[in-house]
Amino acid sequence: MLSGKEVAKHNTRESCWIIVHDHVYDVTDFLSEHPGGSRIILKYAGKDATQEYDPIHPPDAITSNLPPEKHLGPVQPDTVEKVVVQITDEEKARLERMELRPSLDEILNLHDFESIAKAVMPEKAWAYYSSAADDEITIRENHAAYHRIWFRPRVLRDVSTVDFSSTILGHKTSMPIYITATALGKLGHPDGELNLTRAAAKHGVIQMIPTLASCSFDELVDGARPGQVQFFQLYVNKDRAITKRIVQHADSRGIKGLFITVDAPQLGRREKDMRQKFDAEDPAEVSKAGNDKVDRSQGAARAISSFIDPGLNWGDLKWFKSVTKMPLVLKGVQCWEDAVEAYDHGVAGVVLSNHGGRQLDFSRSGIEVLAECVSHFKEKRGLSFPNDKFQLFVDGGVRRATDVLKAIALGASAVGIGRPFLYAYSAYGPDGVDKALQILRDEFEMNMRLLGAPTIKDVVPEMVDASNIGSHIVAVPVDSLYNSNCI
Amino acid sequence: MLSGKEVAKHNTRESCWIIVHDHVYDVTDFLSEHPGGSRIILKYAGKDATQEYDPIHPPDAITSNLPPEKHLGPVQPDTVEKVVVQITDEEKARLERMELRPSLDEILNLHDFESIAKAVMPEKAWAYYSSAADDEITIRENHAAYHRIWFRPRVLRDVSTVDFSSTILGHKTSMPIYITATALGKLGHPDGELNLTRAAAKHGVIQMIPTLASCSFDELVDGARPGQVQFFQLYVNKDRAITKRIVQHADSRGIKGLFITVDAPQLGRREKDMRQKFDAEDPAEVSKAGNDKVDRSQGAARAISSFIDPGLNWGDLKWFKSVTKMPLVLKGVQCWEDAVEAYDHGVAGVVLSNHGGRQLDFSRSGIEVLAECVSHFKEKRGLSFPNDKFQLFVDGGVRRATDVLKAIALGASAVGIGRPFLYAYSAYGPDGVDKALQILRDEFEMNMRLLGAPTIKDVVPEMVDASNIGSHIVAVPVDSLYNSNCI
Amino acid sequence: MLSGKEVAKHNTRESCWIIVHDHVYDVTDFLSEHPGGSRIILKYAGKDATQEYDPIHPPDAITSNLPPEKHLGPVQPDTVEKVVVQITDEEKARLERMELRPSLDEILNLHDFESIAKAVMPEKAWAYYSSAADDEITIRENHAAYHRIWFRPRVLRDVSTVDFSSTILGHKTSMPIYITATALGKLGHPDGELNLTRAAAKHGVIQMIPTLASCSFDELVDGARPGQVQFFQLYVNKDRAITKRIVQHADSRGIKGLFITVDAPQLGRREKDMRQKFDAEDPAEVSKAGNDKVDRSQGAARAISSFIDPGLNWGDLKWFKSVTKMPLVLKGVQCWEDAVEAYDHGVAGVVLSNHGGRQLDFSRSGIEVLAECVSHFKEKRGLSFPNDKFQLFVDGGVRRATDVLKAIALGASAVGIGRPFLYAYSAYGPDGVDKALQILRDEFEMNMRLLGAPTIKDVVPEMVDASNIGSHIVAVPVDSLYNSNCI
Amino acid sequence: MLSGKEVAKHNTRESCWIIVHDHVYDVTDFLSEHPGGSRIILKYAGKDATQEYDPIHPPDAITSNLPPEKHLGPVQPDTVEKVVVQITDEEKARLERMELRPSLDEILNLHDFESIAKAVMPEKAWAYYSSAADDEITIRENHAAYHRIWFRPRVLRDVSTVDFSSTILGHKTSMPIYITATALGKLGHPDGELNLTRAAAKHGVIQMIPTLASCSFDELVDGARPGQVQFFQLYVNKDRAITKRIVQHADSRGIKGLFITVDAPQLGRREKDMRQKFDAEDPAEVSKAGNDKVDRSQGAARAISSFIDPGLNWGDLKWFKSVTKMPLVLKGVQCWEDAVEAYDHGVAGVVLSNHGGRQLDFSRSGIEVLAECVSHFKEKRGLSFPNDKFQLFVDGGVRRATDVLKAIALGASAVGIGRPFLYAYSAYGPDGVDKALQILRDEFEMNMRLLGAPTIKDVVPEMVDASNIGSHIVAVPVDSLYNSNCI
Repeated sequence: MLSGKEVAKHNTRESCWIIVHDHVYDVTDFLSEHPGGSRIILKYAGKDATQEYDPIHPPDAITSNLPPEKHLGPVQPDTVEKVVVQITDEEKARLERMELRPSLDEILNLHDFESIAKAVMPEKAWAYYSSAADDEITIRENHAAYHRIWFRPRVLRDVSTVDFSSTILGHKTSMPIYITATALGKLGHPDGELNLTRAAAKHGVIQMIPTLASCSFDELVDGARPGQVQFFQLYVNKDRAITKRIVQHADSRGIKGLFITVDAPQLGRREKDMRQKFDAEDPAEVSKAGNDKVDRSQGAARAISSFIDPGLNWGDLKWFKSVTKMPLVLKGVQCWEDAVEAYDHGVAGVVLSNHGGRQLDFSRSGIEVLAECVSHFKEKRGLSFPNDKFQLFVDGGVRRATDVLKAIALGASAVGIGRPFLYAYSAYGPDGVDKALQILRDEFEMNMRLLGAPTIKDVVPEMVDASNIGSHIVAVPVDSLYNSNCI
Repeated sequence: MLSGKEVAKHNTRESCWIIVHDHVYDVTDFLSEHPGGSRIILKYAGKDATQEYDPIHPPDAITSNLPPEKHLGPVQPDTVEKVVVQITDEEKARLERMELRPSLDEILNLHDFESIAKAVMPEKAWAYYSSAADDEITIRENHAAYHRIWFRPRVLRDVSTVDFSSTILGHKTSMPIYITATALGKLGHPDGELNLTRAAAKHGVIQMIPTLASCSFDELVDGARPGQVQFFQLYVNKDRAITKRIVQHADSRGIKGLFITVDAPQLGRREKDMRQKFDAEDPAEVSKAGNDKVDRSQGAARAISSFIDPGLNWGDLKWFKSVTKMPLVLKGVQCWEDAVEAYDHGVAGVVLSNHGGRQLDFSRSGIEVLAECVSHFKEKRGLSFPNDKFQLFVDGGVRRATDVLKAIALGASAVGIGRPFLYAYSAYGPDGVDKALQILRDEFEMNMRLLGAPTIKDVVPEMVDASNIGSHIVAVPVDSLYNSNCI
Repeated sequence: MLSGKEVAKHNTRESCWIIVHDHVYDVTDFLSEHPGGSRIILKYAGKDATQEYDPIHPPDAITSNLPPEKHLGPVQPDTVEKVVVQITDEEKARLERMELRPSLDEILNLHDFESIAKAVMPEKAWAYYSSAADDEITIRENHAAYHRIWFRPRVLRDVSTVDFSSTILGHKTSMPIYITATALGKLGHPDGELNLTRAAAKHGVIQMIPTLASCSFDELVDGARPGQVQFFQLYVNKDRAITKRIVQHADSRGIKGLFITVDAPQLGRREKDMRQKFDAEDPAEVSKAGNDKVDRSQGAARAISSFIDPGLNWGDLKWFKSVTKMPLVLKGVQCWEDAVEAYDHGVAGVVLSNHGGRQLDFSRSGIEVLAECVSHFKEKRGLSFPNDKFQLFVDGGVRRATDVLKAIALGASAVGIGRPFLYAYSAYGPDGVDKALQILRDEFEMNMRLLGAPTIKDVVPEMVDASNIGSHIVAVPVDSLYNSNCI
Repeated sequence: MLSGKEVAKHNTRESCWIIVHDHVYDVTDFLSEHPGGSRIILKYAGKDATQEYDPIHPPDAITSNLPPEKHLGPVQPDTVEKVVVQITDEEKARLERMELRPSLDEILNLHDFESIAKAVMPEKAWAYYSSAADDEITIRENHAAYHRIWFRPRVLRDVSTVDFSSTILGHKTSMPIYITATALGKLGHPDGELNLTRAAAKHGVIQMIPTLASCSFDELVDGARPGQVQFFQLYVNKDRAITKRIVQHADSRGIKGLFITVDAPQLGRREKDMRQKFDAEDPAEVSKAGNDKVDRSQGAARAISSFIDPGLNWGDLKWFKSVTKMPLVLKGVQCWEDAVEAYDHGVAGVVLSNHGGRQLDFSRSGIEVLAECVSHFKEKRGLSFPNDKFQLFVDGGVRRATDVLKAIALGASAVGIGRPFLYAYSAYGPDGVDKALQILRDEFEMNMRLLGAPTIKDVVPEMVDASNIGSHIVAVPVDSLYNSNCI
C-alpha cells in the first residue's frame, strides 16, 4: 500500500500521480491525451483529485482509460494530505443565496425551479446544464414551438375523475412523461441521478439512465425499488466490445428499453459552457495555454465524450438486435424520413429530439417533427398514432403539463423531461424532484379537466390547432430611427 | 344572546368561534376543510371576522357550509371588541396614491382605469382581478387577437346620426355590449357589484349577475331600476337541489337569461394570485404550513369554488330546461364543434369565451373562435350571423369600441366586458363605471361614423379583414450575439 | 374706435370682450359654445387674444362664427395693454434645445427632422402634429407596411442619367410626390404653410392647401410663384353655401385640383393631443371644470372641426361637379370597393389614405389598400395602373424615397407627404423644407439607379415583392418565466 | 528635389501643396473637386499627408487623378517636418481597450471578433466597415434570413470522416467559402488586405482582391504563395481604357476569375459612416462648410468611388469577353430574372448579393434570391444546382458554418464572407484571420457530422426547411397602454 508522502513526490509533468477514491494512478503519459487538458490534472499532481473528478467523470472513467500497469494500487488514506478547498467570495455569495432561497411551498411551476437553480447553482454546473449549441436558437425554439400550438377544448363532458396514466413500451406510467437521460448529475447535487431514481419510484414514472451519469449504472439500478421500471440511454463506443458488455449488463439488470443516441456522432459546441471555462481560470494562464496541442476550450461536454463512435449507422442495428432482447428506441431522430427508416428497421420507436438544443443549432423542435412524422407515416405506411407497435416520443422545451398534452394530442406516446428535474434537485435536493412531479400531476389533472378529456385516450388531434407549427418567422429588422420618433 | 366576552374565550384550534355579521359560528370542525386554510380563520378565533370575510365570500357562504347546530346565534354587538386594523406602510402609500390619482376628467379610455387601478388597489385585490392561468398567454392573446383584425371602412355614407343600440336575447341595449359576470366585487370597492347594477341602469345596458358576487343576489336585483334587464351567471353545484333553488329563485326575481358557465369544471391556477398569498404573509409561517394537509397555496379562486360540479355534461341541459323558462346560454364554449352541439341542444346561444384567460392557458381567444363558428355554422347548419334564434357572444380582452365592432362585424350579437368595469370602480367608485360606459358610447359614435355604418346592422363582415386571425406566430428566438453587434 | 381701456372692463363671464387682430369682439354668448371650452377665452377676457388665437384658428374663424352685431369694430392699438407672456422653465429649456440643435448639414434623412422637432417644438404643437387615433396602431402600421415590401432590383441597365419627374392630374412635378394638406401650420413656425408654398416652388413640386391652414387661403395662393401649381383640400361644411363659396373661390384663384376629404365625418380622438391639454393646465381647475357642460377634453382637433358635415355622401358628388370645373379627387378612401365606386362616379382619382392614422385606428395603410385596388380594378374594370384617366395616390408613413418608389411600383401616380415637412420647418424654418426636398431628390436619384430604373415609367410591379403586405401579424405573448431563465 | 521648407510655404487655399509618400503634389485646383471636401486637404497644406491619405485611397489615386504637371517630384525626406499626431483621450481609451482585449483563445465564433472590433477599432474605421444603406434594414435581414431556414438532419450515417473541400470555378478550396472583396483594408490594420492573402494561403481558400483595396493590386498578388488562387473584383471605370488596362493586368498576373460588380452604379448612402464625419469634426466648422459647393457629407464611400460607371450594361459583357480570358462572374445580382439573363449571356456565374446591405436598402438577402433562382432556373432553363457550368454564389450576413451549409443545401457553389475577416484582423491582426478560418473549419466538421453529410455533395435540399424564406413579416405595432397594464 502506497503512502500519501510517496505519492506527493510525483507532482510534475515528468512524473504525475494522482489519487482517486483512495487509489493511486500514474497519469504521466495520459496528460497530453486528457480531453479536458493537462493543466487541470497537474493542479492535483501528487494529490487527491477525487473531489474534482467525481462530478465530471463516470465512476469507471479512470480505470477503463488507463492501462492496468498504471493502476498503482490503494493508498493509505490517513497519510494523504487533505486538499483544502478555498471558498471564494463568489462561492460565499452563492451559498448565501442558497440559504435564502424561497420555501419549496412557494414553488408553483417548473420555471420556478430553473429560476432558483440559476441563482443558487455553481456557475460551472449551471453553464453545463443550461448551455446549448452555437447561438442557442434551437434550445429556445424547443419551448417556443409549443407556444405555436393552441388548444381547442371541449366542454360539458363529465370530468369528475380524470386519469392520466398511460404506458410506455408496455410499461405503466402514472403520467405520459418519463425522466430522460442527462449527463453529470452530481454537478448539481451530491446524490446526482439517484435523486431521480427515488422520485421516479415514488411517483410511478420511468427514469432513463444515462451513459454519462455521475453515479454508476449499478448504483442507479440498485437504487430502484423492486419492480421499478428503468430504461437505459446508450452512447455507442467505438469499441463495440465495450458497448456489448454495457448493453448486456443492462439487459441482465432488468432494464426495459435501450435508447440509442443517434444525434451525437460528435458532441456539440456549447459556448456558454466553453466560456465558463475561461472565466473561471486565470486569463494569463489560458493565454499561454493556447500553445498546447490539446485544445482545452471545449467545456465539460467534450471532456467526457471522445469515445463516442461517429461511424455508427443503420447497419449497426442488426448487431444490436443480436446482442440484446431489450426493445430498441432511437433517440435523436429529427425528420420523418429517418423515423420511417427506423420503423422499417424494426425498432420499437423513436425519440424525436434535438438533444435539448445541444447539438445542431437550427434543428427543428421535436414537437414540430412529430407533426410531420404523423402525417407522413399515415401516407407512407398507413400508421396512426399513438401506436403501441411503434411509439413516437418527443423531448425538449417542456415546462408545463399543457406542453405534454399538446404532444399527446398530436400522437406522441409520452414526452421526455430532463433539465427541469436537474434544476429541481440542484435547488432543493430530492424534495425538489418530488415537488416537480407533484406539480405536473396537479397540472395534468387540472388541464385534462379543462380540455374535457377524462383519460389520455381522449386527448385527440382535434383538441389542438397546430396549423402554425411550421412558421419559422423572423420579424423584419426594426427601423430604429422611425421607432425612436414614434413610440 | 351571546356576549363578546364569551365568544372571546373560544380562540384556539381546539375551540374556535368567530363572529360574522353579528352572529356567532363554531368553526372548530370546519378548520381543516376550509379551502383557504385554517390559519386565516385562526387569526380571527374568538373575534369579529366580518371585515375579512365579506369581500371574499358570498354572503351566505358560512350559513350554507356549516350545519345548523354550529350556528350559535346572535351576539350582543356592543360587547364585541373592535378589531383594530393596523395600517401598514404599504397600505399608507397606497392610500396616498389613491388620494393623488388623476381627476376622472383626465381618463380618456378603458386602459386608463386599469393603469390607475393597478396603482391604487390593494395588492391582493389587483392580484385576484388581474391574474390569469399559468403563463398568462391566453389573457394577453385575448386582446392581441383583436389586433390581427383590421378595418375596411366605407366612406361617403350619411352618418349624420348613428344608432348603436341593439338587442340581446330580445332585450334592448343601448350598445352591443353587456357587463359580464366577475367574482368578488367587493375586493375593489365596498359597494361591489352594486356599482355595476346602477351604472347599467343609467346607460341602458344589461348586467350579468355572478354566482360568486360579493353582494347577495337579491341585493343586486333589488338594486335594479324597474324594468332593468339582468342576466344571471351560474356555477352549477354538485348538489342539484341547491342549483335548482338558485335557478328558480332567479327566475322568480325576473332574470331574463341564464348563462351557465361550462369552462370551469375546476377553477384554473392563477399563479399571480397564488404568489400574492405568499408575499403577503410571513414566509417562516408559510414554510411551516407546508406540512399541513390542506393546501393553502391556491389563492382566492380556489377558496370559493370547491362546490362547482366537474361532472356537468350535455345530458344536464334537459334538466335545466325542466326547471326554468329562462333562455339558456352556455358560457365558455371554445370551439365550433361545441357551439354546434349547443345549437342542436336547443339553447338560446353561446358565449365564446375562455373565462378571461383564467382557465386553460393556450385556449384561443373568443374572437378567433367566433370566426371559426360563423364559417362552420354556415356549412353545417346553413345559419348566418348575427342571428336572433341562436346568438353568439364573445368576451375577453375588449378595451375599445373598435374591438366590439370587430366582433359585431364577424357575427357576434354582443360582447361581454368584465375587468375594465371592475377597474373603473376600484379606482373611482360608481363614477368610474359611469365614465367607462360614457367613453364607450363616445367611441361607438365616433367609430361607427368612421366605419361608414349608421346602425349596428350596417357593421358587416366586409368591413373587417380577419384573414390573419389564426396566425399564432412566435418569432424565432433572437440571435443575441449578432444583435449586440449590429444594433 | 374703441379704446383698450374700455375693452378691459369686459373681463367677466357676464360680459366678455376680446381683441383679435386689432378688432374687438363680444364673445359673452359664445363662451358656452366654444369647442375649446370657455376657460381659455376667459383667460383673455378684456385683453388681446391674438397670440393665442392665431396658430389654432383659421384666420376668419371668429368673423364667420360670430354674428355681425358682435363685431364691435377696431380698437386703438396703442391703448391696448400688451399681454406679457411669461416664459416657463420648460419653455426656457426648449429654447435652449432649439439653440443647440445640430446644423442643418448634419441632417441626413427625414427621420432626423422628426427627431429634432420632437425635442425643440412646444409640447402642444408636437402633440397636435404627432398624435394619432386611439392606440396609435394605424399611424405606426402606415410606416411598417412599407417594410413588408422588398425590392427586386435590376442590374446592368444604363442609369447614367435618371429622371424622376412625373405628372399629377396632368401637371408636371419634379418628383412623384406632393406636399399634402395638414392643419394648424403656425403651431410649428410663425410663417406656417407659407414655408411649404415657397419650398414647393423652388423644387417644382405641388402643394395641397388645407382647409384648416393657419394661413389664409389667399395668403397661400398669393405666396405662390407665377405658374406654380396648387391643389386644395376641402372639408365640406354642413352649410353648402359656404362650401360653394370656398370651392368657387379656389377655382377662380387657379387651383388645379380639389381633394375632398371623405374620411372625417367626425374628427378622430387623438389622445396624445387630448392628454397634452390636461398636462398643461392646472389640475385643480380641470377637475372642477368637469362639471361644465362643454367637454374641453377634445384637444385642438375637435376645437376646429365642428363645422364638418357627417352627412356628406356619394350623392353630393354631382353637386360638386355642378359648382366647379376643377378635377375632383376623393381623399381618404380605404378599400377597393369605394375606389371603384369613386371611379364609377367619374372623379379624377382617389387618395388611399387613413388620414395619417388620425381617424379610425386599425384602418389599413394606404399602401396595402393600393395593392388591393390595383388587383380589383383589373378584375372589375379592366384598368391598369398608373393610369392618367383615374389616378391612385397614397399617403401616410412615408419617410424615404424608397417608400415612394414602392408605391409607384405598385401603381400609384404619386405619394403625399405631410408631417415630415411640418417637422422640417418646425425645426429649421424654411431652410428645413428646402433641405427635406433636397434629401428626397438625392434619395430618388440614388435609389432609381440602384433599382435599375432610369425613369419613373421603369419602376414596375416586378421590382417589388409585396407578397406579405397583408400579413397583420401579432406575435404570441411572451412567456415571461421561460424567457427570464433562458436568455 | 524639393525641400520641406519650400513645400511648407504653399499652405493656403490659393496655393496648396501636399506631400504623399515623399512626393510633392500641387492640389490647389483640385481642392474644389475632392470628393472628401477641401477642408481635410487644407489641414495638410504644406505638410506630409501620407498618414491620412493611406488608409482611404488606393495607392495610385493621387497620381491618376492629378494631371502630370501637378506632380512636382520628390521631396528631401529629412527636410520635412514630422506631422505630430495628437492622441485624443478617446484614442487613449481605445488603445487601452485594445490592450485589454481577451486572449485569442477565448474567441469562440465569428461574432466575437465583431464584438471586440467594435470596441477596439478607431470609430471612423468601424463606421466605414459596419455601416450600411439607409435604415440598415437589409444588412440585418441578410443575417436574419438564414434564421428562417431550419435543418432537417439525417442520423445513423457514417460520419467518421467528413470532407468539406469543394471547387470554385474549377479551383480547389478547403471549404465552400471564399474571402470576398471589401474596400479600405488598412483602416483596420496597417497590413490591410495582405492579412487576408496570407491567411487564405494557409487555409487553402480563395481571396477575391478588391478594386478599392488599400494595398495595391500587385502587392496582393506578390503576397500570394506559388499556386495560390486569387480572384479579382472589378468596379468598371467610366474610362474603358483604364478598365481594360486593369483587367488585362489582372489576367497577366494569373488571376483566375473576374467578379464584375453590378450593384453599384452609384455607391450607397451609409448614414452611420456619414454621421461619423460630423461627429469627428468641429461642428462650427462643419456648419460654415455648408456653404461650400462640394458636399462633404458623403463619408468615405463616396470619396473613393466617383469613377464608377453608372452606364455599365448588358451590352458591355461582349467587350469584357474580348479583352480577357478570365471567367466572368457578375457580383450583385438580386433577382432571378437577372441571373437567367447572366446565364444567357454566357458568363460563368453570379454572386447573389446586395453588397452587404450597403447599396439599396430593402433589397432581399442573397440566400432568399438563391432559393428563387434555383426554382426558376429549373423551370426556365432546366438547370439544377450546384452546377459547375454556371455557378451560384451568395454573400452577406454569414457568421456560422451552418449559414454556409444552408446556402450549399439550397444550391450555392460557395459563399462569400467579408466583414468577419476584417473584424478578425482589426482586432487581432493576422492571427485573427487565421483563427477565424480555423473556427469555420471546426464548425464545418462538427455540423456536417451532425447533419449526417460526410461530403459537400451530401448536403442536399432535403436537409433544409426553407419554406419561410419569403416571410417578410413586420409585427403589428404594440399596444402600449395595454402592455403597460398586463405585463
